Amino acid sequence: MPARDDPGTCAMTFSRDTQPRRVDGDRWATPIREGWDIRGNANGGYLRALCTRAMCAHADRPDPITITAHYLAPGKVGDAVLTAHTVKAGRQLTTVSATLSAAPAATGAAAGKPLLQVLGAFGDLSVRGSFPERIIGAPPELPPPAQCLRMLSDTVAAPSLFRNRVELLLHPDDARFAQGMPSGESRLRGWFRLADAEPMDSVALVLAADAFPPTIFNTHLPLGWAPTVELTVHVRARPAAGWLRAHFSHRFASSGFIEEDGELWDSEGTLVAQSRQLALLPRPQADPSQTRP
Amino acid sequence: MPARDDPGTCAMTFSRDTQPRRVDGDRWATPIREGWDIRGNANGGYLRALCTRAMCAHADRPDPITITAHYLAPGKVGDAVLTAHTVKAGRQLTTVSATLSAAPAATGAAAGKPLLQVLGAFGDLSVRGSFPERIIGAPPELPPPAQCLRMLSDTVAAPSLFRNRVELLLHPDDARFAQGMPSGESRLRGWFRLADAEPMDSVALVLAADAFPPTIFNTHLPLGWAPTVELTVHVRARPAAGWLRAHFSHRFASSGFIEEDGELWDSEGTLVAQSRQLALLPRPQADPSQTRP
Repeated sequence: MPARDDPGTCAMTFSRDTQPRRVDGDRWATPIREGWDIRGNANGGYLRALCTRAMCAHADRPDPITITAHYLAPGKVGDAVLTAHTVKAGRQLTTVSATLSAAPAATGAAAGKPLLQVLGAFGDLSVRGSFPERIIGAPPELPPPAQCLRMLSDTVAAPSLFRNRVELLLHPDDARFAQGMPSGESRLRGWFRLADAEPMDSVALVLAADAFPPTIFNTHLPLGWAPTVELTVHVRARPAAGWLRAHFSHRFASSGFIEEDGELWDSEGTLVAQSRQLALLPRPQADPSQTRP
Repeated sequence: MPARDDPGTCAMTFSRDTQPRRVDGDRWATPIREGWDIRGNANGGYLRALCTRAMCAHADRPDPITITAHYLAPGKVGDAVLTAHTVKAGRQLTTVSATLSAAPAATGAAAGKPLLQVLGAFGDLSVRGSFPERIIGAPPELPPPAQCLRMLSDTVAAPSLFRNRVELLLHPDDARFAQGMPSGESRLRGWFRLADAEPMDSVALVLAADAFPPTIFNTHLPLGWAPTVELTVHVRARPAAGWLRAHFSHRFASSGFIEEDGELWDSEGTLVAQSRQLALLPRPQADPSQTRP
Protein backbone atom coordinates (compact mmCIF):
# COMPACT_ATOMS: atom_id res chain seq x y z
CA MET A 1 0.00 0.00 0.00
CA PRO A 2 2.61 2.56 -0.97
CA ALA A 3 -0.02 5.20 -1.69
CA ARG A 4 -0.91 5.27 2.02
CA ASP A 5 2.52 6.64 2.81
CA ASP A 6 1.92 9.56 0.50
CA PRO A 7 0.59 12.52 2.47
CA GLY A 8 -1.04 13.78 -0.71
CA THR A 9 -3.57 10.95 -0.59
CA CYS A 10 -3.79 10.72 3.18
CA ALA A 11 -6.91 11.75 5.04
CA MET A 12 -4.86 13.82 7.55
CA THR A 13 -7.51 12.95 10.11
CA PHE A 14 -5.41 13.71 13.19
CA SER A 15 -4.30 17.08 11.85
CA ARG A 16 -7.89 17.95 10.85
CA ASP A 17 -9.39 16.80 14.15
CA THR A 18 -7.01 18.83 16.31
CA GLN A 19 -7.19 22.19 14.51
CA PRO A 20 -8.25 25.00 16.84
CA ARG A 21 -10.08 28.19 15.85
CA ARG A 22 -9.48 31.41 17.74
CA VAL A 23 -12.68 32.73 19.35
CA ASP A 24 -11.10 35.81 20.92
CA GLY A 25 -7.82 36.79 22.53
CA ASP A 26 -7.60 34.00 25.08
CA ARG A 27 -10.16 31.49 23.89
CA TRP A 28 -9.87 28.78 21.25
CA ALA A 29 -12.67 26.63 19.92
CA THR A 30 -11.38 23.05 20.06
CA PRO A 31 -14.29 20.70 19.27
CA ILE A 32 -13.94 17.10 20.41
CA ARG A 33 -14.42 15.21 17.15
CA GLU A 34 -16.03 11.84 16.64
CA GLY A 35 -14.00 8.69 16.37
CA TRP A 36 -11.38 9.30 19.08
CA ASP A 37 -13.22 7.64 21.94
CA ILE A 38 -12.69 4.53 23.99
CA ARG A 39 -16.15 3.28 24.92
CA GLY A 40 -17.65 6.77 24.69
CA ASN A 41 -14.93 8.83 26.35
CA ALA A 42 -12.37 10.66 24.22
CA ASN A 43 -8.88 9.19 24.50
CA GLY A 44 -6.78 11.22 26.95
CA GLY A 45 -3.94 11.60 24.46
CA TYR A 46 -6.32 13.03 21.88
CA LEU A 47 -7.64 15.58 24.41
CA ARG A 48 -4.09 16.56 25.31
CA ALA A 49 -3.16 16.84 21.64
CA LEU A 50 -6.17 19.15 21.12
CA CYS A 51 -4.93 21.36 23.93
CA THR A 52 -1.34 21.21 22.73
CA ARG A 53 -2.21 22.29 19.20
CA ALA A 54 -4.19 25.28 20.50
CA MET A 55 -1.50 26.19 23.04
CA CYS A 56 1.17 26.11 20.30
CA ALA A 57 -1.01 28.55 18.33
CA HIS A 58 -1.54 30.71 21.41
CA ALA A 59 2.19 30.77 22.15
CA ASP A 60 3.02 31.25 18.44
CA ARG A 61 5.62 28.48 18.73
CA PRO A 62 5.62 25.38 16.53
CA ASP A 63 6.48 22.69 19.09
CA PRO A 64 5.54 21.56 22.58
CA ILE A 65 8.66 21.07 24.72
CA THR A 66 7.05 19.95 27.98
CA ILE A 67 3.32 19.47 28.56
CA THR A 68 1.68 18.56 31.87
CA ALA A 69 -2.02 17.72 31.90
CA HIS A 70 -4.28 17.00 34.86
CA TYR A 71 -7.35 14.98 33.93
CA LEU A 72 -10.49 16.34 35.59
CA ALA A 73 -13.45 14.79 33.78
CA PRO A 74 -14.10 12.54 30.76
CA GLY A 75 -14.46 14.31 27.41
CA LYS A 76 -17.45 13.60 25.19
CA VAL A 77 -17.91 14.43 21.52
CA GLY A 78 -19.05 18.05 21.15
CA ASP A 79 -18.00 21.64 21.43
CA ALA A 80 -15.12 22.48 23.72
CA VAL A 81 -13.16 25.62 24.49
CA LEU A 82 -9.56 26.09 25.52
CA THR A 83 -8.90 29.19 27.61
CA ALA A 84 -5.19 29.98 27.50
CA HIS A 85 -2.97 32.35 29.45
CA THR A 86 0.58 33.19 28.40
CA VAL A 87 2.49 33.15 31.67
CA LYS A 88 5.81 34.15 30.13
CA ALA A 89 7.04 34.69 26.59
CA GLY A 90 10.80 34.20 26.82
CA ARG A 91 13.56 34.19 24.25
CA GLN A 92 13.68 30.42 23.81
CA LEU A 93 10.43 29.21 25.40
CA THR A 94 6.90 30.46 25.97
CA THR A 95 5.00 29.15 29.01
CA VAL A 96 1.24 28.78 28.72
CA SER A 97 -1.39 27.68 31.25
CA ALA A 98 -4.73 26.52 29.85
CA THR A 99 -8.07 24.96 30.72
CA LEU A 100 -10.03 22.76 28.31
CA SER A 101 -13.74 22.91 29.09
CA ALA A 102 -16.84 21.41 27.58
CA ALA A 103 -18.53 24.39 25.91
CA PRO A 104 -21.73 25.70 27.50
CA ALA A 105 -23.65 24.97 24.29
CA ALA A 106 -22.74 21.32 24.62
CA THR A 107 -23.50 20.92 28.29
CA GLY A 108 -26.45 23.25 28.67
CA ALA A 109 -24.77 24.57 31.81
CA ALA A 110 -24.02 28.22 32.50
CA ALA A 111 -20.29 27.59 32.54
CA GLY A 112 -18.27 24.88 30.86
CA LYS A 113 -17.13 21.92 32.91
CA PRO A 114 -13.31 21.72 33.08
CA LEU A 115 -11.95 18.57 31.43
CA LEU A 116 -8.20 19.14 31.45
CA GLN A 117 -5.89 21.62 33.12
CA VAL A 118 -2.65 21.97 31.18
CA LEU A 119 0.68 23.69 31.75
CA GLY A 120 3.29 23.70 29.02
CA ALA A 121 6.40 25.27 27.57
CA PHE A 122 6.60 25.75 23.82
CA GLY A 123 9.54 26.33 21.50
CA ASP A 124 11.01 25.47 18.12
CA LEU A 125 12.61 22.03 17.76
CA SER A 126 13.93 22.85 14.28
CA VAL A 127 16.47 25.17 15.91
CA ARG A 128 19.28 22.93 17.09
CA GLY A 129 22.43 24.23 18.67
CA SER A 130 25.71 22.38 18.93
CA PHE A 131 24.87 20.64 22.16
CA PRO A 132 26.55 17.58 23.60
CA GLU A 133 24.58 14.34 23.32
CA ARG A 134 24.54 11.54 25.86
CA ILE A 135 21.96 8.80 25.49
CA ILE A 136 21.77 5.94 27.99
CA GLY A 137 19.27 3.57 26.44
CA ALA A 138 18.11 2.42 23.04
CA PRO A 139 14.87 1.87 21.15
CA PRO A 140 13.06 -1.32 22.22
CA GLU A 141 13.74 -4.34 20.02
CA LEU A 142 10.53 -5.33 18.27
CA PRO A 143 9.53 -7.91 15.69
CA PRO A 144 8.43 -6.28 12.40
CA PRO A 145 4.95 -4.70 12.58
CA ALA A 146 3.44 -7.63 10.64
CA GLN A 147 4.47 -9.95 13.50
CA CYS A 148 3.08 -7.74 16.24
CA LEU A 149 -0.46 -7.81 17.57
CA ARG A 150 -3.20 -5.31 16.97
CA MET A 151 -5.43 -4.48 19.92
CA LEU A 152 -8.89 -5.93 19.38
CA SER A 153 -12.10 -4.42 20.58
CA ASP A 154 -13.04 -7.51 22.56
CA THR A 155 -10.14 -7.17 24.98
CA VAL A 156 -10.11 -5.52 28.34
CA ALA A 157 -8.19 -2.63 26.80
CA ALA A 158 -10.72 -2.25 24.01
CA PRO A 159 -9.90 0.98 22.20
CA SER A 160 -13.24 1.03 20.42
CA LEU A 161 -13.37 3.80 17.83
CA PHE A 162 -9.96 5.13 18.78
CA ARG A 163 -8.34 1.98 17.36
CA ASN A 164 -9.38 3.09 13.89
CA ARG A 165 -7.51 6.37 14.29
CA VAL A 166 -4.14 4.90 15.21
CA GLU A 167 -2.13 1.84 14.33
CA LEU A 168 -0.94 0.36 17.58
CA LEU A 169 0.85 -2.98 17.41
CA LEU A 170 2.06 -4.73 20.55
CA HIS A 171 5.12 -6.92 20.97
CA PRO A 172 3.71 -10.49 21.08
CA ASP A 173 5.43 -11.12 24.43
CA ASP A 174 3.58 -8.19 25.98
CA ALA A 175 0.15 -8.70 24.40
CA ARG A 176 -1.20 -11.84 26.07
CA PHE A 177 -2.85 -10.02 28.98
CA ALA A 178 -5.84 -9.69 26.67
CA GLN A 179 -6.22 -13.47 26.82
CA GLY A 180 -5.84 -13.46 30.59
CA MET A 181 -2.13 -14.20 30.45
CA PRO A 182 -0.21 -11.14 31.71
CA SER A 183 3.52 -11.39 31.10
CA GLY A 184 4.33 -10.54 34.72
CA GLU A 185 6.74 -7.89 33.42
CA SER A 186 5.83 -4.28 34.11
CA ARG A 187 6.19 -3.23 30.51
CA LEU A 188 4.49 -2.83 27.15
CA ARG A 189 6.41 -2.43 23.90
CA GLY A 190 5.01 -1.74 20.49
CA TRP A 191 4.80 0.18 17.26
CA PHE A 192 2.71 3.32 16.78
CA ARG A 193 1.66 5.43 13.85
CA LEU A 194 -1.40 7.41 12.85
CA ALA A 195 -4.05 5.73 10.68
CA ASP A 196 -3.37 5.87 6.94
CA ALA A 197 0.28 6.52 7.80
CA GLU A 198 -0.53 10.18 8.27
CA PRO A 199 2.74 12.04 8.85
CA MET A 200 3.42 12.77 12.50
CA ASP A 201 4.55 16.06 13.97
CA SER A 202 5.56 16.91 17.52
CA VAL A 203 1.89 17.17 18.58
CA ALA A 204 1.29 13.58 17.42
CA LEU A 205 3.92 12.50 19.96
CA VAL A 206 1.69 13.91 22.69
CA LEU A 207 -1.07 11.62 21.42
CA ALA A 208 1.23 8.60 21.12
CA ALA A 209 2.44 9.01 24.70
CA ASP A 210 -1.03 8.18 25.99
CA ALA A 211 -2.31 5.75 23.35
CA PHE A 212 -1.14 2.43 24.79
CA PRO A 213 -2.97 0.27 27.33
CA PRO A 214 -1.74 0.59 30.93
CA THR A 215 1.36 -1.48 31.75
CA ILE A 216 -0.50 -2.62 34.86
CA PHE A 217 -2.35 -5.03 32.54
CA ASN A 218 0.82 -7.10 32.34
CA THR A 219 1.16 -7.51 36.08
CA HIS A 220 -0.81 -9.64 38.45
CA LEU A 221 -2.24 -6.56 40.11
CA PRO A 222 -6.03 -6.39 39.87
CA LEU A 223 -7.22 -5.47 36.41
CA GLY A 224 -9.15 -2.34 35.66
CA TRP A 225 -8.41 1.03 34.19
CA ALA A 226 -6.00 3.17 36.18
CA PRO A 227 -7.35 6.73 35.72
CA THR A 228 -4.58 9.22 34.97
CA VAL A 229 -4.19 12.01 37.52
CA GLU A 230 -1.32 13.77 35.78
CA LEU A 231 0.77 13.09 32.70
CA THR A 232 3.85 15.01 31.60
CA VAL A 233 5.42 14.62 28.16
CA HIS A 234 8.84 15.99 27.23
CA VAL A 235 9.23 16.33 23.45
CA ARG A 236 12.86 16.16 22.30
CA ALA A 237 12.63 16.11 18.52
CA ARG A 238 10.20 16.09 15.63
CA PRO A 239 9.87 12.48 14.52
CA ALA A 240 11.32 11.19 11.24
CA ALA A 241 8.81 9.63 8.82
CA GLY A 242 7.64 6.12 9.67
CA TRP A 243 6.67 4.10 12.72
CA LEU A 244 7.46 5.05 16.29
CA ARG A 245 8.81 2.45 18.68
CA ALA A 246 7.29 2.77 22.13
CA HIS A 247 8.37 1.43 25.51
CA PHE A 248 6.21 1.85 28.61
CA SER A 249 7.01 0.57 32.09
CA HIS A 250 6.24 1.16 35.73
CA ARG A 251 8.20 0.62 38.91
CA PHE A 252 6.15 1.86 41.82
CA ALA A 253 2.61 0.85 42.70
CA SER A 254 2.00 2.05 46.24
CA SER A 255 -0.29 4.21 48.39
CA GLY A 256 -3.08 3.83 45.84
CA PHE A 257 -1.01 5.33 43.01
CA ILE A 258 1.12 4.04 40.18
CA GLU A 259 3.60 5.82 37.94
CA GLU A 260 4.17 4.90 34.31
CA ASP A 261 7.17 5.96 32.25
CA GLY A 262 7.20 6.04 28.47
CA GLU A 263 9.80 6.46 25.75
CA LEU A 264 9.08 7.09 22.09
CA TRP A 265 11.82 6.52 19.49
CA ASP A 266 11.50 7.39 15.81
CA SER A 267 12.48 5.34 12.76
CA GLU A 268 15.98 6.81 12.79
CA GLY A 269 16.58 5.70 16.38
CA THR A 270 16.18 9.16 17.93
CA LEU A 271 14.51 9.49 21.32
CA VAL A 272 11.70 11.87 20.38
CA ALA A 273 9.68 11.96 23.60
CA GLN A 274 9.61 10.85 27.22
CA SER A 275 6.51 10.65 29.36
CA ARG A 276 5.62 10.01 32.97
CA GLN A 277 2.18 9.75 34.47
CA LEU A 278 0.72 9.33 37.92
CA ALA A 279 -2.44 7.24 37.91
CA LEU A 280 -4.88 6.04 40.53
CA LEU A 281 -4.59 2.32 41.20
CA PRO A 282 -7.85 0.54 40.55
CA ARG A 283 -9.38 -0.74 43.76
CA PRO A 284 -9.34 -4.52 43.96
CA GLN A 285 -12.51 -5.98 42.45
CA ALA A 286 -14.38 -8.91 43.88
CA ASP A 287 -14.87 -10.14 40.33
CA PRO A 288 -12.16 -8.98 37.94
CA SER A 289 -14.29 -9.94 34.94
CA GLN A 290 -16.56 -7.04 35.83
CA THR A 291 -13.92 -4.63 34.62
CA ARG A 292 -14.14 -6.11 31.15
CA PRO A 293 -16.44 -4.45 28.66
CA MET B 1 23.48 15.64 69.97
CA PRO B 2 20.23 13.95 70.96
CA ALA B 3 18.57 17.29 71.71
CA ARG B 4 18.70 18.20 68.01
CA ASP B 5 16.35 15.34 67.22
CA ASP B 6 13.79 16.73 69.64
CA PRO B 7 11.34 18.94 67.76
CA GLY B 8 10.74 20.80 71.01
CA THR B 9 14.19 22.35 70.86
CA CYS B 10 14.40 22.53 67.08
CA ALA B 11 14.30 25.85 65.27
CA MET B 12 11.65 24.59 62.79
CA THR B 13 13.20 26.95 60.26
CA PHE B 14 11.76 25.26 57.16
CA SER B 15 8.25 25.18 58.58
CA ARG B 16 8.54 28.83 59.69
CA ASP B 17 10.00 30.02 56.38
CA THR B 18 7.31 28.42 54.23
CA GLN B 19 4.20 29.57 56.12
CA PRO B 20 1.79 31.50 53.91
CA ARG B 21 -0.66 34.17 55.04
CA ARG B 22 -3.96 34.64 53.24
CA VAL B 23 -4.27 38.14 51.75
CA ASP B 24 -7.72 37.61 50.24
CA GLY B 25 -9.69 34.81 48.59
CA ASP B 26 -7.15 33.82 45.97
CA ARG B 27 -3.96 35.47 47.12
CA TRP B 28 -1.42 34.31 49.65
CA ALA B 29 1.53 36.29 50.98
CA THR B 30 4.54 33.97 50.70
CA PRO B 31 7.66 36.00 51.48
CA ILE B 32 10.97 34.61 50.23
CA ARG B 33 12.97 34.42 53.46
CA GLU B 34 16.69 34.92 53.91
CA GLY B 35 19.08 32.02 54.04
CA TRP B 36 17.65 29.80 51.30
CA ASP B 37 19.73 31.14 48.42
CA ILE B 38 22.48 29.74 46.29
CA ARG B 39 24.69 32.69 45.42
CA GLY B 40 21.86 35.19 45.75
CA ASN B 41 19.02 33.25 44.09
CA ALA B 42 16.55 31.31 46.21
CA ASN B 43 16.87 27.53 45.80
CA GLY B 44 14.24 26.23 43.38
CA GLY B 45 13.09 23.55 45.79
CA TYR B 46 12.50 26.18 48.48
CA LEU B 47 10.42 28.28 46.06
CA ARG B 48 8.38 25.22 45.11
CA ALA B 49 7.92 24.31 48.77
CA LEU B 50 6.65 27.85 49.41
CA CYS B 51 4.09 27.43 46.64
CA THR B 52 3.18 23.92 47.75
CA ARG B 53 2.49 24.99 51.34
CA ALA B 54 0.22 27.81 50.18
CA MET B 55 -1.52 25.61 47.60
CA CYS B 56 -2.21 22.95 50.27
CA ALA B 57 -3.82 25.69 52.38
CA HIS B 58 -5.79 26.96 49.38
CA ALA B 59 -6.99 23.44 48.55
CA ASP B 60 -7.62 22.68 52.24
CA ARG B 61 -5.77 19.39 51.81
CA PRO B 62 -2.78 18.36 53.92
CA ASP B 63 -0.53 16.82 51.27
CA PRO B 64 0.76 17.48 47.76
CA ILE B 65 0.24 14.42 45.53
CA THR B 66 1.74 15.71 42.28
CA ILE B 67 3.30 19.14 41.78
CA THR B 68 4.59 20.53 38.47
CA ALA B 69 6.50 23.81 38.50
CA HIS B 70 7.81 25.83 35.58
CA TYR B 71 10.68 28.12 36.52
CA LEU B 72 10.32 31.57 34.98
CA ALA B 73 12.73 33.87 36.81
CA PRO B 74 15.13 33.71 39.77
CA GLY B 75 13.63 34.49 43.18
CA LYS B 76 15.26 37.05 45.45
CA VAL B 77 14.69 37.63 49.15
CA GLY B 78 11.61 39.81 49.64
CA ASP B 79 7.87 39.91 49.45
CA ALA B 80 6.13 37.47 47.11
CA VAL B 81 2.53 36.59 46.40
CA LEU B 82 0.96 33.32 45.31
CA THR B 83 -2.24 33.70 43.30
CA ALA B 84 -4.13 30.41 43.37
CA HIS B 85 -7.09 29.06 41.43
CA THR B 86 -8.94 25.89 42.42
CA VAL B 87 -9.57 24.16 39.10
CA LYS B 88 -11.49 21.26 40.60
CA ALA B 89 -12.29 20.14 44.13
CA GLY B 90 -12.95 16.42 43.82
CA ARG B 91 -13.72 13.72 46.31
CA GLN B 92 -10.16 12.44 46.63
CA LEU B 93 -8.07 15.22 45.07
CA THR B 94 -8.20 18.98 44.63
CA THR B 95 -6.45 20.48 41.59
CA VAL B 96 -4.95 23.95 41.95
CA SER B 97 -3.16 26.19 39.45
CA ALA B 98 -1.01 28.99 40.88
CA THR B 99 1.48 31.72 40.05
CA LEU B 100 4.20 32.85 42.43
CA SER B 101 5.17 36.45 41.75
CA ALA B 102 7.58 38.89 43.27
CA ALA B 103 5.33 41.38 45.07
CA PRO B 104 5.10 44.89 43.61
CA ALA B 105 6.46 46.36 46.83
CA ALA B 106 9.62 44.32 46.40
CA THR B 107 10.18 45.03 42.72
CA GLY B 108 8.94 48.58 42.52
CA ALA B 109 7.10 47.54 39.37
CA ALA B 110 3.39 48.01 38.74
CA ALA B 111 2.76 44.27 38.55
CA GLY B 112 4.66 41.44 40.14
CA LYS B 113 7.08 39.49 37.98
CA PRO B 114 6.10 35.82 37.71
CA LEU B 115 8.72 33.52 39.22
CA LEU B 116 7.03 30.11 39.13
CA GLN B 117 3.92 28.70 37.48
CA VAL B 118 2.66 25.67 39.37
CA LEU B 119 0.01 23.03 38.77
CA GLY B 120 -0.73 20.47 41.45
CA ALA B 121 -3.14 17.93 42.87
CA PHE B 122 -3.58 17.78 46.64
CA GLY B 123 -4.96 15.08 48.90
CA ASP B 124 -4.51 13.31 52.22
CA LEU B 125 -1.73 10.74 52.44
CA SER B 126 -2.82 9.62 55.90
CA VAL B 127 -5.84 7.96 54.31
CA ARG B 128 -4.59 4.65 52.97
CA GLY B 129 -6.79 2.09 51.36
CA SER B 130 -6.04 -1.59 51.00
CA PHE B 131 -4.19 -1.23 47.72
CA PRO B 132 -1.82 -3.72 46.19
CA GLU B 133 1.87 -2.82 46.38
CA ARG B 134 4.51 -3.56 43.77
CA ILE B 135 7.90 -1.92 44.12
CA ILE B 136 10.62 -2.52 41.54
CA GLY B 137 13.65 -0.92 43.09
CA ALA B 138 15.21 -0.27 46.46
CA PRO B 139 16.74 2.61 48.39
CA PRO B 140 20.31 3.41 47.27
CA GLU B 141 23.04 1.80 49.36
CA LEU B 142 24.97 4.50 51.15
CA PRO B 143 27.80 4.58 53.67
CA PRO B 144 26.65 6.01 57.02
CA PRO B 145 26.20 9.80 56.99
CA ALA B 146 29.48 10.31 58.87
CA GLN B 147 31.34 8.70 55.93
CA CYS B 148 29.58 10.79 53.27
CA LEU B 149 30.70 14.19 52.04
CA ARG B 150 29.13 17.53 52.78
CA MET B 151 28.96 20.02 49.93
CA LEU B 152 31.38 22.86 50.57
CA SER B 153 30.90 26.41 49.45
CA ASP B 154 34.12 26.40 47.45
CA THR B 155 32.88 23.79 45.00
CA VAL B 156 31.27 24.36 41.66
CA ALA B 157 27.96 23.35 43.21
CA ALA B 158 28.37 25.80 46.08
CA PRO B 159 25.06 25.94 47.91
CA SER B 160 26.05 29.10 49.73
CA LEU B 161 23.51 29.99 52.42
CA PHE B 162 21.17 27.16 51.42
CA ARG B 163 23.70 24.63 52.72
CA ASN B 164 23.05 25.86 56.26
CA ARG B 165 19.36 25.08 55.91
CA VAL B 166 19.71 21.45 54.85
CA GLU B 167 22.04 18.58 55.59
CA LEU B 168 23.03 17.10 52.27
CA LEU B 169 25.67 14.38 52.31
CA LEU B 170 26.92 12.80 49.09
CA HIS B 171 28.08 9.24 48.54
CA PRO B 172 31.90 9.51 48.36
CA ASP B 173 31.92 7.79 44.95
CA ASP B 174 29.65 10.49 43.53
CA ALA B 175 31.20 13.54 45.17
CA ARG B 176 34.56 13.94 43.46
CA PHE B 177 33.29 16.13 40.64
CA ALA B 178 33.91 19.02 43.02
CA GLN B 179 37.62 18.26 42.79
CA GLY B 180 37.42 18.03 39.00
CA MET B 181 36.99 14.23 39.04
CA PRO B 182 33.50 13.39 37.81
CA SER B 183 32.61 9.73 38.31
CA GLY B 184 31.48 9.36 34.71
CA GLU B 185 28.26 7.81 36.02
CA SER B 186 25.07 9.76 35.47
CA ARG B 187 24.03 9.62 39.09
CA LEU B 188 24.24 11.26 42.50
CA ARG B 189 23.36 9.45 45.71
CA GLY B 190 23.17 10.89 49.17
CA TRP B 191 21.49 11.59 52.47
CA PHE B 192 19.13 14.49 53.09
CA ARG B 193 17.50 16.04 56.09
CA LEU B 194 16.57 19.52 57.22
CA ALA B 195 19.00 21.49 59.40
CA ASP B 196 18.76 20.75 63.13
CA ALA B 197 17.01 17.50 62.18
CA GLU B 198 13.74 19.41 61.87
CA PRO B 199 10.98 16.85 61.27
CA MET B 200 10.00 16.53 57.62
CA ASP B 201 6.49 16.48 56.22
CA SER B 202 5.32 15.89 52.67
CA VAL B 203 6.14 19.50 51.71
CA ALA B 204 9.75 18.97 52.78
CA LEU B 205 9.95 16.20 50.15
CA VAL B 206 9.22 18.83 47.51
CA LEU B 207 12.27 20.73 48.78
CA ALA B 208 14.46 17.63 48.94
CA ALA B 209 13.63 16.70 45.34
CA ASP B 210 15.44 19.81 44.11
CA ALA B 211 18.19 20.21 46.70
CA PHE B 212 20.98 18.14 45.14
CA PRO B 213 23.52 19.32 42.57
CA PRO B 214 22.77 18.34 38.95
CA THR B 215 23.80 14.80 38.01
CA ILE B 216 25.40 16.32 34.93
CA PHE B 217 28.30 17.30 37.21
CA ASN B 218 29.31 13.63 37.26
CA THR B 219 29.52 13.31 33.51
CA HIS B 220 32.11 14.62 31.14
CA LEU B 221 29.57 16.95 29.59
CA PRO B 222 30.56 20.60 29.90
CA LEU B 223 30.12 21.92 33.43
CA GLY B 224 27.72 24.67 34.32
CA TRP B 225 24.28 24.91 35.85
CA ALA B 226 21.48 23.33 33.88
CA PRO B 227 18.52 25.67 34.47
CA THR B 228 15.31 23.79 35.23
CA VAL B 229 12.48 24.33 32.76
CA GLU B 230 9.98 22.07 34.50
CA LEU B 231 10.05 19.79 37.50
CA THR B 232 7.32 17.38 38.59
CA VAL B 233 7.29 15.67 41.98
CA HIS B 234 4.98 12.79 42.88
CA VAL B 235 4.61 12.40 46.64
CA ARG B 236 3.71 8.87 47.71
CA ALA B 237 3.91 8.94 51.50
CA ARG B 238 4.72 11.18 54.43
CA PRO B 239 8.29 10.37 55.45
CA ALA B 240 9.15 8.50 58.65
CA ALA B 241 11.44 10.34 61.07
CA GLY B 242 15.12 10.41 60.15
CA TRP B 243 17.28 10.82 57.08
CA LEU B 244 16.05 10.47 53.51
CA ARG B 245 18.07 8.47 51.01
CA ALA B 246 18.17 10.13 47.60
CA HIS B 247 19.06 8.80 44.16
CA PHE B 248 19.23 11.08 41.14
CA SER B 249 20.14 10.04 37.60
CA HIS B 250 19.72 11.07 34.00
CA ARG B 251 19.59 9.12 30.77
CA PHE B 252 18.93 11.53 27.93
CA ALA B 253 20.95 14.62 27.11
CA SER B 254 19.92 15.69 23.61
CA SER B 255 18.52 18.58 21.58
CA GLY B 256 19.74 21.05 24.17
CA PHE B 257 17.77 19.45 27.00
CA ILE B 258 18.43 16.94 29.75
CA GLU B 259 16.03 15.05 32.00
CA GLU B 260 16.80 14.13 35.57
CA ASP B 261 14.94 11.52 37.60
CA GLY B 262 14.93 11.40 41.37
CA GLU B 263 13.81 8.97 44.05
CA LEU B 264 13.51 9.72 47.75
CA TRP B 265 13.27 6.88 50.26
CA ASP B 266 12.62 7.31 53.98
CA SER B 267 14.35 5.67 56.94
CA GLU B 268 11.88 2.78 56.88
CA GLY B 269 12.68 1.97 53.24
CA THR B 270 9.48 3.44 51.80
CA LEU B 271 9.59 5.23 48.46
CA VAL B 272 8.20 8.61 49.54
CA ALA B 273 8.66 10.67 46.37
CA GLN B 274 9.67 10.50 42.72
CA SER B 275 10.74 13.47 40.64
CA ARG B 276 11.53 14.23 37.04
CA GLN B 277 12.78 17.47 35.60
CA LEU B 278 13.56 18.85 32.17
CA ALA B 279 16.50 21.24 32.19
CA LEU B 280 18.32 23.28 29.59
CA LEU B 281 21.76 21.90 28.81
CA PRO B 282 24.45 24.46 29.47
CA ARG B 283 26.08 25.62 26.26
CA PRO B 284 29.64 24.40 25.94
CA GLN B 285 32.08 26.92 27.44
CA ALA B 286 35.42 27.82 25.93
CA ASP B 287 36.87 27.76 29.42
CA PRO B 288 34.98 25.47 31.81
CA SER B 289 36.66 27.08 34.83
CA GLN B 290 34.64 30.21 34.10
CA THR B 291 31.51 28.46 35.34
CA ARG B 292 33.01 28.12 38.78
CA PRO B 293 32.14 30.77 41.31
